[in-house]
Amino acid sequence: MQICLAQLNYHIGNFGTNVEKMIQSIEVAVKNHADIICFGELATCGYPPRDFLEFDDFIRMSDDCLKRLLPYSKNIAIVVGAPTRNPVKEGKDLYNSAYFLYDGKIQYVQHKALLPTYDVFDEYRYFEPATEFGVVDFKGKKIALTICEDIWNIGNENPLYTICPMDEMLPFQPDFMINLSASPFAFDHAEERLHVLRCNAKRYNVPIFYVNHVGAQTELIFDGGSVVMSPDGSVFQEMSYFQEESTIFELEEVIKGGREIVQPKNKIKDIHDALVLGIKDYFGKLGLSKAVLGLSGGIDSAVTAVLAARALGAENVRVLLMPSQFSSQHSVDDAVALAENNNIRYDIIPIESMFRAFEAQLQPLFGDLPFNVTEENIQARIRGILNMAVSNKFGHILLNTTNKSEMAVGYGTLYGDLCGGLSVIGDVYKTDVFLLAEYINKDSEIIPLNTITKPPSAELRPNQKDSDSLPEYHILDPILRLYIEKYMGPNEIIEAGFDEALVKRILKMVNINEFKRHQTAPVLRVSSKAFGVGRRMPIVGKYLS
Amino acid sequence: MQICLAQLNYHIGNFGTNVEKMIQSIEVAVKNHADIICFGELATCGYPPRDFLEFDDFIRMSDDCLKRLLPYSKNIAIVVGAPTRNPVKEGKDLYNSAYFLYDGKIQYVQHKALLPTYDVFDEYRYFEPATEFGVVDFKGKKIALTICEDIWNIGNENPLYTICPMDEMLPFQPDFMINLSASPFAFDHAEERLHVLRCNAKRYNVPIFYVNHVGAQTELIFDGGSVVMSPDGSVFQEMSYFQEESTIFELEEVIKGGREIVQPKNKIKDIHDALVLGIKDYFGKLGLSKAVLGLSGGIDSAVTAVLAARALGAENVRVLLMPSQFSSQHSVDDAVALAENNNIRYDIIPIESMFRAFEAQLQPLFGDLPFNVTEENIQARIRGILNMAVSNKFGHILLNTTNKSEMAVGYGTLYGDLCGGLSVIGDVYKTDVFLLAEYINKDSEIIPLNTITKPPSAELRPNQKDSDSLPEYHILDPILRLYIEKYMGPNEIIEAGFDEALVKRILKMVNINEFKRHQTAPVLRVSSKAFGVGRRMPIVGKYLS
Repeated sequence: MQICLAQLNYHIGNFGTNVEKMIQSIEVAVKNHADIICFGELATCGYPPRDFLEFDDFIRMSDDCLKRLLPYSKNIAIVVGAPTRNPVKEGKDLYNSAYFLYDGKIQYVQHKALLPTYDVFDEYRYFEPATEFGVVDFKGKKIALTICEDIWNIGNENPLYTICPMDEMLPFQPDFMINLSASPFAFDHAEERLHVLRCNAKRYNVPIFYVNHVGAQTELIFDGGSVVMSPDGSVFQEMSYFQEESTIFELEEVIKGGREIVQPKNKIKDIHDALVLGIKDYFGKLGLSKAVLGLSGGIDSAVTAVLAARALGAENVRVLLMPSQFSSQHSVDDAVALAENNNIRYDIIPIESMFRAFEAQLQPLFGDLPFNVTEENIQARIRGILNMAVSNKFGHILLNTTNKSEMAVGYGTLYGDLCGGLSVIGDVYKTDVFLLAEYINKDSEIIPLNTITKPPSAELRPNQKDSDSLPEYHILDPILRLYIEKYMGPNEIIEAGFDEALVKRILKMVNINEFKRHQTAPVLRVSSKAFGVGRRMPIVGKYLS
Repeated sequence: MQICLAQLNYHIGNFGTNVEKMIQSIEVAVKNHADIICFGELATCGYPPRDFLEFDDFIRMSDDCLKRLLPYSKNIAIVVGAPTRNPVKEGKDLYNSAYFLYDGKIQYVQHKALLPTYDVFDEYRYFEPATEFGVVDFKGKKIALTICEDIWNIGNENPLYTICPMDEMLPFQPDFMINLSASPFAFDHAEERLHVLRCNAKRYNVPIFYVNHVGAQTELIFDGGSVVMSPDGSVFQEMSYFQEESTIFELEEVIKGGREIVQPKNKIKDIHDALVLGIKDYFGKLGLSKAVLGLSGGIDSAVTAVLAARALGAENVRVLLMPSQFSSQHSVDDAVALAENNNIRYDIIPIESMFRAFEAQLQPLFGDLPFNVTEENIQARIRGILNMAVSNKFGHILLNTTNKSEMAVGYGTLYGDLCGGLSVIGDVYKTDVFLLAEYINKDSEIIPLNTITKPPSAELRPNQKDSDSLPEYHILDPILRLYIEKYMGPNEIIEAGFDEALVKRILKMVNINEFKRHQTAPVLRVSSKAFGVGRRMPIVGKYLS
């Protein structure tokens, strides 16, 4: 039996495009004699559809997609994820389902039982969990259909659910399992995914055909990496990352096992590739092509500019250099060098005249009060206006260049350098931004060395350095990681070996700056805990603040 | 038996303050011979604690609160909501529980079974649902303890759950029910709450003691209105709205029933009072006292300024009038009149000099391109900078003045008039803003009549009116309401009698402007569906856009 995994890049709510993409894959698979073709979880409508699911009209459009697919199932079985209306009055209105289409009919529907409701996931917001389980009979084989999280209650240290759907299917003696997934990238997630699949294959002694989405949906970057796992727990094949791929597998070969074909994994390269895809799909799916950003001569905007050029083409990126009276000449030189190295158009707009205009108009209110963060912010906000002016006039979308360390401690100006439609490196700690820069420079000096080696500075007052108000990043970042990614409280972090006063100061900075993060752009997610939809904190709270 | 309902204003994560507030109420109740005192759902930590719940340290601090309360339970039973660790490895790590403390010990713990996971609620993100149910024996009475949503699966058109906890408790023959709630205000919610309580009392033929939170937690405004319901379904007493109150009730009297003491309800007055409380608690709980806002002479900023003055005191509010070359003299006059009527300090800062400075610096990039939305936005953003400069220099928090109609269709400038720490009227449609203005003016002309009667305009280009680019608000608002509050798709709205092209245009405007709402301040919630945490929409989607 030939099973095709179609790892596609869907677009939320773009039913026409999604279904046409599936039809194209079906036609190729039929030509190549596949018996079954598998698409992702909620493939008709894209993932995550969020509150669009609450519109009956939206569900009707997904139903129409299934109807459009049915005629194509004459000679091939189609396994596809879609929402289903719950016919029972009690409970949530929908199920998250795997449809098995064949011979022009819906042959079987299996609903999802384990509904991830943590981090970026909200599935119990919309879906009723499955309570009935079965298998599909197809050409003499029994197939267990599971959906993403359904197989994630095995091999975990902290099991989130009290049941395991495959246990319920086991009495029906399935020959193999198909899992339709929509599992987003985090730099440490692929290993975990393989571990979970391995645990499942061994425990149930069946081959598993796991098909994932690929492509970004705003902040979530689906990385592909679909997996065919043999019953012995060996990886028959891990499919490519960050690109569409359709591959056909022979079931008997998979059952034999004994081979291990996995993708090479490299944290920084994977983050790089994920961010490039994240930018590309953000623009592509919004029907946009051009980006603008402010280039300071520092490492954050340099890395962001290179990533943007790689995603959109250098000809579609333009940058603004906006020196103030506090900017050093080397910052301008470094920014120019970066732009020239990458063939990116740059314009230089000194901001002093606008700053003076604000100063003059505010003089009657401010009197002789000393220069402070107010004037620093005015500079950052003038730059925000200029970036947005170019964005508005020419249709370039402003990219935000803030890194995760700054975002965490609130080291940035709201409506100033925190402006932008998309935060590119907002889930990358400063210490990893340096590694990204080194990776970008691995073959040649794309980012000027001086940009990488000089001490980070916002240059908003004379001789300012980040380290004037923040601890060094190699101390700050590990503390942030323990708090944000590992949920450690102050006592645990102090016990891990960090200075008590410093830990309390940093955690307080993180918490009192929640209001800033609330108003910033979506952040491309590359870690297990990014700022944004996956981290929901009170703004008016008093914990550690 | 004397039962005290303590309707208190908690603060998320402020354990010390919360527990001291409870202890004070206990001491008064003991003096007044109460047998039982009831506090709200998750009263130890405040509601909603969101992802703070994922920190073990946070749960430990809640546990410490319970320990501090125990000694006070010698002569009175204390019923209080708090999170509980789930001792079982499988499932979520916490329960949302009602504790029954007496005689210095925890006598009973009932977990919550129905976990709201919709709109602003995310409870299944954190909590495992209860599967075991019982009653408390206390002084010869059997008491059923339920938590908020636990009683909300009766009398609903669209029941969300498949079980009903009180059905499970019925075999234990409870004499009365205590329900600990954290139920936020929406202008049409109080009637629904009484209906649900009435259905419960009648169905189970028991008195119900329902205690709610009062006070705002960022965007959610808990309105109080705790209820004592007699078994005959009559309202023995509905407690006050928008303020703390502790009242003792005699069980035997409640059982008799036959009286109906409810609070008067008035949509616009209630919204007014809710917003005033929302502003007051936002500032108070952040330890802040002073607000700034831009006053345009229009109705939105006028209403916001009056609400701010009522919440914080006129002496704590200051406003900026920032006319451009397109501002009419009457706008400045109306704004001055508003400020003077309300004894609010105002400063006038013309923005033309800054606008000219931007124009000059952008000239090399813009050349002869015509004046368009770019230049309109620059003006709005200059005002944003000025507001934030006053905020930064003097510690006044900027209030946002955007209404729900504008927020819906994206009629506002990101980083311009969309700036601000809190959106005051972002959940109030323009047509209701007019009613709020009339309500404010019911006794005297607090808001200048001209502000109310003139056609709305952003005054960002010569002779601009809102109606140049938007339909009249009396047509726009009902369409928005059907789409946002009623989840109707385009076909249903058109069938309801609206023009097809207009409906499609408006729905598209709503959807393509999701990126703006993603970056705006938290919105004080006064309807059943506010923008913000309760409405989760994809940014990069293609549905109706």
